[in-house]
Amino acid sequence: MVGKMITTIIAIATSLSLLFISPSTKSYYHSLYISPSLSDNESISHHLYTLTRRPHLAGTEANSEAATYVLSTLSNINHVKTHLAEYDVLLTYPDSRSLTLTRPSPHPPITFTLRQEVYEGDPYADVADQVEPTFHAYAKSGTVKGPVGYVNYGRVEDYTTLKEMGINVSGCIVLARYGEIYRGDIVENAYEAGAIGVLIYTDRKDYGGGGGDTKWFPDDKWMPPSGVQVGSVFNGAGDPTTPGWPSTIEEGGCERLSEDEVEKGGDVPLIPSLPISGADGEEIMRSIGGLVANDAWQGDKDAPVYRVGPGPGIIDLSYKAKQVISTIQNVIGIIEGAEEPDRFVILGNHRDAWTYGAVDPNSGTAALLEVAERLGKLQKQGWKPRRTIVFCNWDAEEYGLIGSTEWVEENREMLASKVVAYLNVDIAVSGPGFQASATPQLDQLIIEATKQVQDPDNSSQTVYESMVQTTNNPKIGRLGGGGSDYAAFVQHIGVPSTDMSFGNGYPVYHSMYDDFVWMSNFGDPMFCRHAAAASIWGLVALKLADEEILPFNYDSYVHELQVSAEDLETELSDKNISLIPLFKSIEKMRKAAKQINDEVKEMKINKGWAFKWKNQSWKVRAMNDRLMMAERALTDREGLSGRPWYKHLIYAPSKHNDYGSKCFPGIDDAVENAKSLNTEDSWHSVQHEIWRVSRIVTQASLVLRGELT
Amino acid sequence: MVGKMITTIIAIATSLSLLFISPSTKSYYHSLYISPSLSDNESISHHLYTLTRRPHLAGTEANSEAATYVLSTLSNINHVKTHLAEYDVLLTYPDSRSLTLTRPSPHPPITFTLRQEVYEGDPYADVADQVEPTFHAYAKSGTVKGPVGYVNYGRVEDYTTLKEMGINVSGCIVLARYGEIYRGDIVENAYEAGAIGVLIYTDRKDYGGGGGDTKWFPDDKWMPPSGVQVGSVFNGAGDPTTPGWPSTIEEGGCERLSEDEVEKGGDVPLIPSLPISGADGEEIMRSIGGLVANDAWQGDKDAPVYRVGPGPGIIDLSYKAKQVISTIQNVIGIIEGAEEPDRFVILGNHRDAWTYGAVDPNSGTAALLEVAERLGKLQKQGWKPRRTIVFCNWDAEEYGLIGSTEWVEENREMLASKVVAYLNVDIAVSGPGFQASATPQLDQLIIEATKQVQDPDNSSQTVYESMVQTTNNPKIGRLGGGGSDYAAFVQHIGVPSTDMSFGNGYPVYHSMYDDFVWMSNFGDPMFCRHAAAASIWGLVALKLADEEILPFNYDSYVHELQVSAEDLETELSDKNISLIPLFKSIEKMRKAAKQINDEVKEMKINKGWAFKWKNQSWKVRAMNDRLMMAERALTDREGLSGRPWYKHLIYAPSKHNDYGSKCFPGIDDAVENAKSLNTEDSWHSVQHEIWRVSRIVTQASLVLRGELT
Repeated sequence: MVGKMITTIIAIATSLSLLFISPSTKSYYHSLYISPSLSDNESISHHLYTLTRRPHLAGTEANSEAATYVLSTLSNINHVKTHLAEYDVLLTYPDSRSLTLTRPSPHPPITFTLRQEVYEGDPYADVADQVEPTFHAYAKSGTVKGPVGYVNYGRVEDYTTLKEMGINVSGCIVLARYGEIYRGDIVENAYEAGAIGVLIYTDRKDYGGGGGDTKWFPDDKWMPPSGVQVGSVFNGAGDPTTPGWPSTIEEGGCERLSEDEVEKGGDVPLIPSLPISGADGEEIMRSIGGLVANDAWQGDKDAPVYRVGPGPGIIDLSYKAKQVISTIQNVIGIIEGAEEPDRFVILGNHRDAWTYGAVDPNSGTAALLEVAERLGKLQKQGWKPRRTIVFCNWDAEEYGLIGSTEWVEENREMLASKVVAYLNVDIAVSGPGFQASATPQLDQLIIEATKQVQDPDNSSQTVYESMVQTTNNPKIGRLGGGGSDYAAFVQHIGVPSTDMSFGNGYPVYHSMYDDFVWMSNFGDPMFCRHAAAASIWGLVALKLADEEILPFNYDSYVHELQVSAEDLETELSDKNISLIPLFKSIEKMRKAAKQINDEVKEMKINKGWAFKWKNQSWKVRAMNDRLMMAERALTDREGLSGRPWYKHLIYAPSKHNDYGSKCFPGIDDAVENAKSLNTEDSWHSVQHEIWRVSRIVTQASLVLRGELT
Repeated sequence: MVGKMITTIIAIATSLSLLFISPSTKSYYHSLYISPSLSDNESISHHLYTLTRRPHLAGTEANSEAATYVLSTLSNINHVKTHLAEYDVLLTYPDSRSLTLTRPSPHPPITFTLRQEVYEGDPYADVADQVEPTFHAYAKSGTVKGPVGYVNYGRVEDYTTLKEMGINVSGCIVLARYGEIYRGDIVENAYEAGAIGVLIYTDRKDYGGGGGDTKWFPDDKWMPPSGVQVGSVFNGAGDPTTPGWPSTIEEGGCERLSEDEVEKGGDVPLIPSLPISGADGEEIMRSIGGLVANDAWQGDKDAPVYRVGPGPGIIDLSYKAKQVISTIQNVIGIIEGAEEPDRFVILGNHRDAWTYGAVDPNSGTAALLEVAERLGKLQKQGWKPRRTIVFCNWDAEEYGLIGSTEWVEENREMLASKVVAYLNVDIAVSGPGFQASATPQLDQLIIEATKQVQDPDNSSQTVYESMVQTTNNPKIGRLGGGGSDYAAFVQHIGVPSTDMSFGNGYPVYHSMYDDFVWMSNFGDPMFCRHAAAASIWGLVALKLADEEILPFNYDSYVHELQVSAEDLETELSDKNISLIPLFKSIEKMRKAAKQINDEVKEMKINKGWAFKWKNQSWKVRAMNDRLMMAERALTDREGLSGRPWYKHLIYAPSKHNDYGSKCFPGIDDAVENAKSLNTEDSWHSVQHEIWRVSRIVTQASLVLRGELT
């Protein structure tokens, strides 16, 4: 009965809306979208279960099957037009691997099995052999032998510490632990330090499990001792053989770099590497003598004492990759906008997984399908989006953001002038606690959305209230890192973007234990977090798609720039570097942000009948274009020095940590270089990079203002 | 009486138009615009007279006065909002010059006066000392001495001819004649051939005057023997000290390259040069012995026999430049669009002149003011443009397109998303005969305009009919050259553009004889050509500003690309290079052009009441954006290899001839290089450049189609 009443009310509301074009109609639908009546935890759980039945690495038949599932689910929703966007890209798989540790006598050498163990009663035991042997995608093939040295997290500063201790890892194989930086940077930093091979293990200090009386999966959420975090060690974005252009499938193919040219490009490693388990890592650690590593480098209380070596343990490492040009499949679903079909709000999540991918990424895929299905229900009740909504289910993200990057590269010119925002969810749920990163003009919108959605872990308050409870000032992160599919949108073409999730890291990341069992026991037993993720994600999309004036606020951007510039000023206070141009440009941005905010306010006051009938819709469009295009203006066509694919001068990965996310990456690179060289030229480059940022901030302020100089 | 009747009719028409929003209203105004009743030859003549009273080189007080005149004229027109856009840029002026020719005995040495003669009765005799001594802007300062060699037009192929004759000009000062390529390239080619200095003279074979019984200015239109073509030898665009960014005026200035860095940039000459008169050139020619130059290299029938030398004549050349950071002033006038204020149709012409500038550029300035004044009259009669019309009167074009380039660089991001088209007129009139160059989607529009305007030199037919009479197929040129202010619009940001003129070259170009006397005696005695230029220019602007659907036709672009690709195929037929990707991309463009043409047709059929009331105006806007942005997609963010400012991969200057205007400049450069090196790598680069062009043509076709892949 209640259901029928709602339908009737909706029918009336819809008819009224057609008469009055009342803005309240949209908010009615938005409230309905997040109401319990529309959400469906069971369906989310079913989607996740189905998507994760088999390991579905990019390029495999299983992943193609998963694409078919996503495509057909989207196709079954009213008014969603679907298609596949396919590309032929270079992927790598392990062909052969071997790892032997020679220890000082009397200990015999160990040849590691390099296998993750199937536990008793594992419902996936039957398909476990479809999990690829543990490896690093794009690792260099080769056989190396040398003493092993311990390098902590393998950061630049860890090598500085070693240098201060008088330790040289040149000619060695280094043992690094996962956790602080991107694994591709661990390998690159090792190469730059002269190492000839790299092993990266999962230390239980960081990922739990093993040691003392702790438990691990399936008994607890922690990583089992045999668990291995696999992953890519590619440092670029997109197919390595087609840097900056799409790997389109055509008769005769597309232009493609040779293996040699790819290596010269500098984004693939030049020394072999392997990921290994916590147990194997500890075994190797015991073979390392020499100086005791400092406290921060040690393991948990039950771990042996960590020493830096190198040696006496000797490692024989052999790795051979299969390189394959594979067809990957992005699934695209489009709900055409009723009034502004040529303005796109894009929701994206990837589908390919290292193993089963219940957390990474299919919690996000399940949420994506939930968003689409709820919008389908809204459409049945009369709602239509003002702007076009695009669902993208990416492939080959795990290898290097490949599906999203190739698609952005192919559609670059169109996207650059039409995309309002890109909303990414990679992992929707790995645990409790809402996390968001965004380009700053979206901060307020995201906060507003969290104020409307109930916390799945505390039904008495909103997500926002829980965030405030944890930290006084709910902090939204930034998108400088290369961690997921927002990279091409933000860093290559300058689209306002966000990346959202419940939970912040999880122990079985990228291992074969990331499966539906883990999710339904530890990640999200009731699938309420998934539902909440779909609520926030969809609500943000609805506001962007429906609000007449785009809900962007550049005040937050100005604040962010100001704080970062002040940090930089402190960092460079003893150098002969002027930050005046940067502060001046931020001042222009501040004025422009205030001006457009004032204009938006005035327009909202003047709205109504008169406004509609005077054909002032052009004014709204013009204002929205200013709001939308200001972010584009923060990209520079030449891109970062030495890394031309990265066009955004405010947000991009830092050179030695792809996950890093500082402001002003170009200035940062130049400062790092100048600090190391300390030449007049190198400091001159710092000043040049400050000028460059000042100029793009000025460009953005001109676009926001919308007046010719 | 007639006048009053017209006003009444207009009043009625205007009222009706407000009721019916009838498209015929716009065409009524467009017809009115080109009717004799609105044009005013006397006013044009007066503007030209006033603008050219004194020499007004960029950076001088006289040019600032001229700016004030343009500003106040525009300001006096109803609804034109004006402002100055000023920049601080590097300009150069001659500080000292000397040129001595040492001849074999018994001839005594000659020290040239390097002065253009004032003729008897010259009304400008009083202000002639305000003409700067003859020089090359941005010429290298220095003193050089060496034997003189003759190099014809100083093209790459001329040096090849010399090489075949066994002549080496290394260590020599070369004597080149003006006429075939840009003078900056003459100096660069000389430098690359090892010359240490360059003299460029005006041969009467090319510019008339002197020799036999011919007459010259003021008795005829020809260049007097003492006349000198001055000009810039800078090979870039915009202020050399701010490549790619605007030379904005702010406290603390903007980033600026040092003299050293500018020289390393490769766009300023590294050896001194001077322009000299026909008389001085002939004198020097007589001192050159050695082999007789071939027929094509000889002068007119009265000239001495030209030999190539080098020597025995010896040249002492000394030149010192004053380098000054000067403030330049662009005058901007804006008529805001009534319906789409954020879409711009820009009309541009420069104001700065080497001397009086009656032809170059102020015939264009006078026409610009005439267009603005006629639009003012239209506005009084009720017309309003749908889109915004912007008048730009540029400064420092002669030095290197500086005013327009700095402005485009400053407003880059805004212009890239808002400019519909840029319509340049540099020289409006140098004689009879209409000439146009354009990006090809404007071809049809220009042809249509010439069909509506009467030929000023034959009142019985239209400009179009005269064009057909001269050549069967009226040919529209292209904008690959760097010859005028369209360069930044087309080649840097990809805006559909045109450049138009009556007349095709004139003998007193860039000399002190380019004055109002020359114009009113030889260039355009009745100022009818000026009026016709204003008619065509303004009509094209009106159609672009008013037509609901932008009058762009990409069929012409497709044809142009196809023909150029076929030429390339012929040129590379014996090489192992595939043009398939290029032809495929052109095929996509052909389909996309057909598709949008069909859509436009259908939309025009469906137009009317229903169309208006269904709020389908969004559809029009979306379609126009596709038409407008397709040109942008032909730019590549990295730009041409080694010349990153040039982003357009279809139209840009050729490397060794800035005036050159072939399709596919990047492929061209690579082919030239590969032909000279003939290595595998160099041919590989040709293939790479072909891929790059194919990709941007594909991008453009996707933008035209407007659908995501």
